[in-house]
Amino acid sequence: MNVEDLVKEIKANFRPKLKVIEWKGDRLVLLDQRLLPFETRYLELKTVDAVADAIRNMAVRGAPAIGITAAYGMALALFERDVGDLNNALKALELARDKLSRTRPTAQNLFWALNRMYGKAKALVEAGSVKNTKELREELVAEANRIFDEELDAEVRMGVYGVQLIQPGDWVLTQCNAGSLATGALGTATAPIYVAKYLGIDVSVIAPETRPWQQGARLTAYELRENGVRVKLIADTAVGLVLRRRLVNLAIVGADRILADGTVYNKIGTLNEAVLAHEFGVPFYVAAPTSTFDLEHKPEEVRIEERDPDEVRTVRTAHGNVYVTMTDIDVYNPVFDETPPKYITAIITEVGLLTQPLDRNIKRFVAQRSS
Amino acid sequence: MNVEDLVKEIKANFRPKLKVIEWKGDRLVLLDQRLLPFETRYLELKTVDAVADAIRNMAVRGAPAIGITAAYGMALALFERDVGDLNNALKALELARDKLSRTRPTAQNLFWALNRMYGKAKALVEAGSVKNTKELREELVAEANRIFDEELDAEVRMGVYGVQLIQPGDWVLTQCNAGSLATGALGTATAPIYVAKYLGIDVSVIAPETRPWQQGARLTAYELRENGVRVKLIADTAVGLVLRRRLVNLAIVGADRILADGTVYNKIGTLNEAVLAHEFGVPFYVAAPTSTFDLEHKPEEVRIEERDPDEVRTVRTAHGNVYVTMTDIDVYNPVFDETPPKYITAIITEVGLLTQPLDRNIKRFVAQRSS
Repeated sequence: MNVEDLVKEIKANFRPKLKVIEWKGDRLVLLDQRLLPFETRYLELKTVDAVADAIRNMAVRGAPAIGITAAYGMALALFERDVGDLNNALKALELARDKLSRTRPTAQNLFWALNRMYGKAKALVEAGSVKNTKELREELVAEANRIFDEELDAEVRMGVYGVQLIQPGDWVLTQCNAGSLATGALGTATAPIYVAKYLGIDVSVIAPETRPWQQGARLTAYELRENGVRVKLIADTAVGLVLRRRLVNLAIVGADRILADGTVYNKIGTLNEAVLAHEFGVPFYVAAPTSTFDLEHKPEEVRIEERDPDEVRTVRTAHGNVYVTMTDIDVYNPVFDETPPKYITAIITEVGLLTQPLDRNIKRFVAQRSS
Repeated sequence: MNVEDLVKEIKANFRPKLKVIEWKGDRLVLLDQRLLPFETRYLELKTVDAVADAIRNMAVRGAPAIGITAAYGMALALFERDVGDLNNALKALELARDKLSRTRPTAQNLFWALNRMYGKAKALVEAGSVKNTKELREELVAEANRIFDEELDAEVRMGVYGVQLIQPGDWVLTQCNAGSLATGALGTATAPIYVAKYLGIDVSVIAPETRPWQQGARLTAYELRENGVRVKLIADTAVGLVLRRRLVNLAIVGADRILADGTVYNKIGTLNEAVLAHEFGVPFYVAAPTSTFDLEHKPEEVRIEERDPDEVRTVRTAHGNVYVTMTDIDVYNPVFDETPPKYITAIITEVGLLTQPLDRNIKRFVAQRSS
């Protein structure tokens, strides 16, 4: 079966079981990720304010998932009350965009999605393509659906390219949560695993806890198990032994940013895995859509963000955050690390696998993308 | 100043501030490590049963500290009540040895200390060197003091040899707790740091949390700060970035066992640090007394102990252990890992530094020890 046919088939037949984001006619239903894995509770959002709160308070997280949520949030501006004619509708959308853009400062997908939704509305009104606000709001729901579908499409493609790296019986090492909970679709690092599952290929996962936020323990282990993928949790300290003893056959992680030379910025702990995998001969893959590539900056220009020391001093439990050490001990809490290209076997994207040498193949892909 | 003079001076003038084990005439005072760092509470132990409970329940931990505690526990058999004549005293000591030996199954120092204490008592009685039980118990306290002093002596020597590797302003990466809390004296990995502190050499420490037991966060960060050593806590995931960015100048860890070829068994996460330090050009030292060497077994004969999955599913807090993920998620929880000799720059022992090639120098040291 060729790639296009398989992509079409998977899009038609397969979704991870946990619905993260779902539009239901006049409201948005969101899985509240703050309570995972202790409680599976859904939020029903009927207003822009409710969506803004959900993003701000991290009921939804992961850049792609935030973007999709915000897109539906824009549509809600025209559902939550009767705003009047099309001119008033555009004004309401402008207000909604402002409100939603003030929720999280750094999520690139958020601003991109808000601008796309507002731009679409404006273009439709100016072109006279919609007769009234009711027609406009249906068009906006359709646009949000398209954003969601494009994300799904890219992830299914990453899954189809990535699954070629997986053999029956393989164990895969992950890091953090680059799963369906972060994107609303198949996830990035998890896409090849879900596609393997769909194709009946036996695949299992070892998920490191990923302190300080424990996304591995709270989210990845949870979503994989919910989807019938065998998963084992380890402490982050056990990554070395797992790789040395070849308890995994390959590693797949996500990425927050990839530079032109192939340097990968991702959740802290990724560098540990990459170096140890390289040392012990385990292939190490990064799964990321092409929108993740930053071809303008050099490694020395990228600042590693440091966050609140309390993230390391505490852990998240069913009863909220609890201190595990002295409340005033000095902490160094970098959120990301940087993995030099030499430790990366290949990058899985929606346009195919980028193999070594990464700088050369990233360049070639850029030429393709801009042509 | 030569080594012997410096050892003498430090033994006379310096101790870590936190008293872990202290004999007070007729009772043993133990720092209750289960409550650290949330509460500093001391246990007053007046009976063999109380000492056995303290070891069993891990109020005291770390092989050397357990051995010293058990030695004083033997003496307590003759303090807790009037046992009668010397024959009855030996019977009471036999009972105490049996009770104390059933507390922890694997701590080698425990059995060694119990046998040494009982053997000493028997030899004294048989040689007619003591007139009565009162004289015998004072001799046993003196023997326990000698065991404690020999441990202190070895650690001061490790500190004196190890401090030569530290330059003013250095940052040292550790792992787990191989500190005074584990030994009752200067610790193994911490000995060079405390000697640096004593000599007025500016030295600071980066301590990884060390999941699943969080000994780095709960014990190492605590004891170093109590002793005026600047310390920063990091998540285990940040070890790679810290080494790549050279935020430390060297790493010093302890060891549970070292084989003839130089393979080091130590707390899970040690291998991660060793490989990453090697890759990024940071010297990686292991501090361990010569009693740690196991010259009989080969790496393929050593089994890595796996422990209760709940250690990974929970964290230790001021309110006891709390779940941080699903209560029934599959877990792989190895307690130790194995670091091949190629990643180890040198081993710090009480008889000096063992440099590369480790197998050759361990062999030479063995010849020395048995001569």
